[in-house]
Amino acid sequence: MNKQAGFEVGTRLGEGTLARTGTITTPHGQIQTPAFIAVGTKATVKTVLPETVKEVGAQAVLANAYHLYLQPGADIVDEAGGLGRFMHWDGPTYTDSGGFQVMSLGVGFKKVLAMDAKGVVSDDVIAEGKERLAHVDDDGVTFKSHLDGSMHRFTPEVSMQIQHQLGADIIFAFDECTTLMNTRAYQEHSLDRTQAWAKRCVVEHARLTTSHPERPYQMLCGVVQGAQYEDLRRKAARDLVSLGFDGFGIGGALEKESLGTIVRWVNEELPEDKPRHLLGIGEPDDIFTAIENGVDTFDCVSPSRVARNAALYTPDGRFNVNTAKHRRAFAPIDEDCDCYTCQHFTKAYLHHLFKAKEMLAFTLATIHNERFILRLVDDVRRSMVDGQFFEFKADTLGRYYANRAPASD
Amino acid sequence: MNKQAGFEVGTRLGEGTLARTGTITTPHGQIQTPAFIAVGTKATVKTVLPETVKEVGAQAVLANAYHLYLQPGADIVDEAGGLGRFMHWDGPTYTDSGGFQVMSLGVGFKKVLAMDAKGVVSDDVIAEGKERLAHVDDDGVTFKSHLDGSMHRFTPEVSMQIQHQLGADIIFAFDECTTLMNTRAYQEHSLDRTQAWAKRCVVEHARLTTSHPERPYQMLCGVVQGAQYEDLRRKAARDLVSLGFDGFGIGGALEKESLGTIVRWVNEELPEDKPRHLLGIGEPDDIFTAIENGVDTFDCVSPSRVARNAALYTPDGRFNVNTAKHRRAFAPIDEDCDCYTCQHFTKAYLHHLFKAKEMLAFTLATIHNERFILRLVDDVRRSMVDGQFFEFKADTLGRYYANRAPASD
Repeated sequence: MNKQAGFEVGTRLGEGTLARTGTITTPHGQIQTPAFIAVGTKATVKTVLPETVKEVGAQAVLANAYHLYLQPGADIVDEAGGLGRFMHWDGPTYTDSGGFQVMSLGVGFKKVLAMDAKGVVSDDVIAEGKERLAHVDDDGVTFKSHLDGSMHRFTPEVSMQIQHQLGADIIFAFDECTTLMNTRAYQEHSLDRTQAWAKRCVVEHARLTTSHPERPYQMLCGVVQGAQYEDLRRKAARDLVSLGFDGFGIGGALEKESLGTIVRWVNEELPEDKPRHLLGIGEPDDIFTAIENGVDTFDCVSPSRVARNAALYTPDGRFNVNTAKHRRAFAPIDEDCDCYTCQHFTKAYLHHLFKAKEMLAFTLATIHNERFILRLVDDVRRSMVDGQFFEFKADTLGRYYANRAPASD
Repeated sequence: MNKQAGFEVGTRLGEGTLARTGTITTPHGQIQTPAFIAVGTKATVKTVLPETVKEVGAQAVLANAYHLYLQPGADIVDEAGGLGRFMHWDGPTYTDSGGFQVMSLGVGFKKVLAMDAKGVVSDDVIAEGKERLAHVDDDGVTFKSHLDGSMHRFTPEVSMQIQHQLGADIIFAFDECTTLMNTRAYQEHSLDRTQAWAKRCVVEHARLTTSHPERPYQMLCGVVQGAQYEDLRRKAARDLVSLGFDGFGIGGALEKESLGTIVRWVNEELPEDKPRHLLGIGEPDDIFTAIENGVDTFDCVSPSRVARNAALYTPDGRFNVNTAKHRRAFAPIDEDCDCYTCQHFTKAYLHHLFKAKEMLAFTLATIHNERFILRLVDDVRRSMVDGQFFEFKADTLGRYYANRAPASD
């Protein structure tokens, strides 16, 4: 790692947890952790101007290598000066490797899984479903674009080349994503493959970094897979550590109930001085669980995706502003919220905008939800420094989930 | 008119024109005229936050009585504290009367007109088309909601009541909108009706104003109809003047070529000390024509509507950023533009957002187009004060239309 990029642990929470605060340094600024990374899949945090993304408290944005490779093309983002310049975001940026998307975005993937009533699908069925859109072999993945059906191939080298063109500060190694439905034997084989790909990513990353010394250093994170198996997760973590990554991602299928357990296995194996990113979580209880078990950063589309469906976060849980009872609700979403939407607009106005199918509805709802989650994570960080973590967690989750089961999308 | 609301003429251009600068004073601030009024049909300037609407230079926003009556309901806007409070716009606001929408928004209206190959449709055909959605009688208009097919009735009194509930600073009398296809006889009859409705609007406006002395005064504008007939237009203007309106709207079907002529007939009859609003124009050449012939304010959905179709204004004409040649156009829409979009984003990025169907595309394009038109009108006003109007007009239109015929939507 070079001088522009690194990680420093701040406060350790202790008390049997793996939680810590920290600072990730990138060529485009620092990230105070724990931190929620706003998702900007296609080089835009949907419906929100970059200045507003900053105003709601986002420290960094994560875009998607798969999406940007297909549209507009990584070469175009490169020519534009990289992801941050292209989308007018001057803070730190992440890209994921595209691994999850090439294997899951296909129309067929989830359907095939859902078709099996026994709960266990043979790996053949997964790979050979009617709507087969991705074929994984030991060298890489051949897949069909969800946009136009054209065929493409990602290998570890291709993913690195794309992510170098995109130019984010923090990038991820190309990994195979499995599901909880795969057999134990398949998971073992898949882990070997992911480890082999990780090595190839490290080699290709070094080659690209060396051949472009003028470019800011990109921190490369290895991604820990291993599904629900403790031995596989621990082995995967140890094997990746030996490759000298700058940080780590924790990926793969996780059941909500085992999130903390699995994350803990992994983080007990990972070195303390490297940042750990959990890919794709963001509900309040998951956030506490992840942080408590040693996660530094995480991303999730949930706050903005549910916002576009009129679902809004409050300290007392999530509600839908589309329902009739909000027609005359001339109060903000949350009286105590400091977001732009709550400062200036009522639920009645949001209700109207959603009913009238006005796009500003999405913008205002996204601003609120992103601010809610970002502020929550800020407050968690503060509670760790102040030694109030457990009280804050009990108060927050007690109130949020008081009236109902955790919301699902 | 009370102390909070009024109009003062500034500089008169002279040289055979009716052009003047001026200041409209409303309870929510002043409007320096000539001014382009941003359209916020459903209590939102589509896809743009109110602060951004202000930043692009909009002085006032115009919403639509018909749309807000149907959704969310004028009573809800009233309870919210009026249009400005509801949508978080603290500057001056306008609402139109709903007359144009109730008579034209129906699916059938334009289709029926288009079906007649002779170019002249009998009034019966217009009123009795298969898709008959509006029935006009001497007392008012019965129409079908374009949202759910429910039946509603607007009279001059209803329009005034709705507009009082909406609470805009400047409101319009309820008028019958005819088309260029109507017969001369129908236009004459319609004008009598519009004049009778205007009287009823004045009476109802006075009643509502008197019974709510706590509310800010709303300036009421009479709307001059009369289609393409000089005698009808002049008579309509004179008749409305006798009713003591606070200002005037110029409405009805206008062919682009006769815009200046018709506006001049009307404005020669209207008193100099009342503001004149031209409903629904906004192309650069129309703006010069309207101002030259004595118009103070005008509104148009065009800048934002065409923006959502990827059509962008520049001093050299309008172009579509969706076309392939902009994929690698790493320059702003207009190098000299001071708008937020041009300061921070390239055509290549906009091209990407439009192709990826990202809503931020609409926001960024709307910001640019609204700023373009608002700045143009600012520059026209300045040129009038500086005595450079004709030079500025020749330069601007010569450049804008150099390469092609005026753009159509």
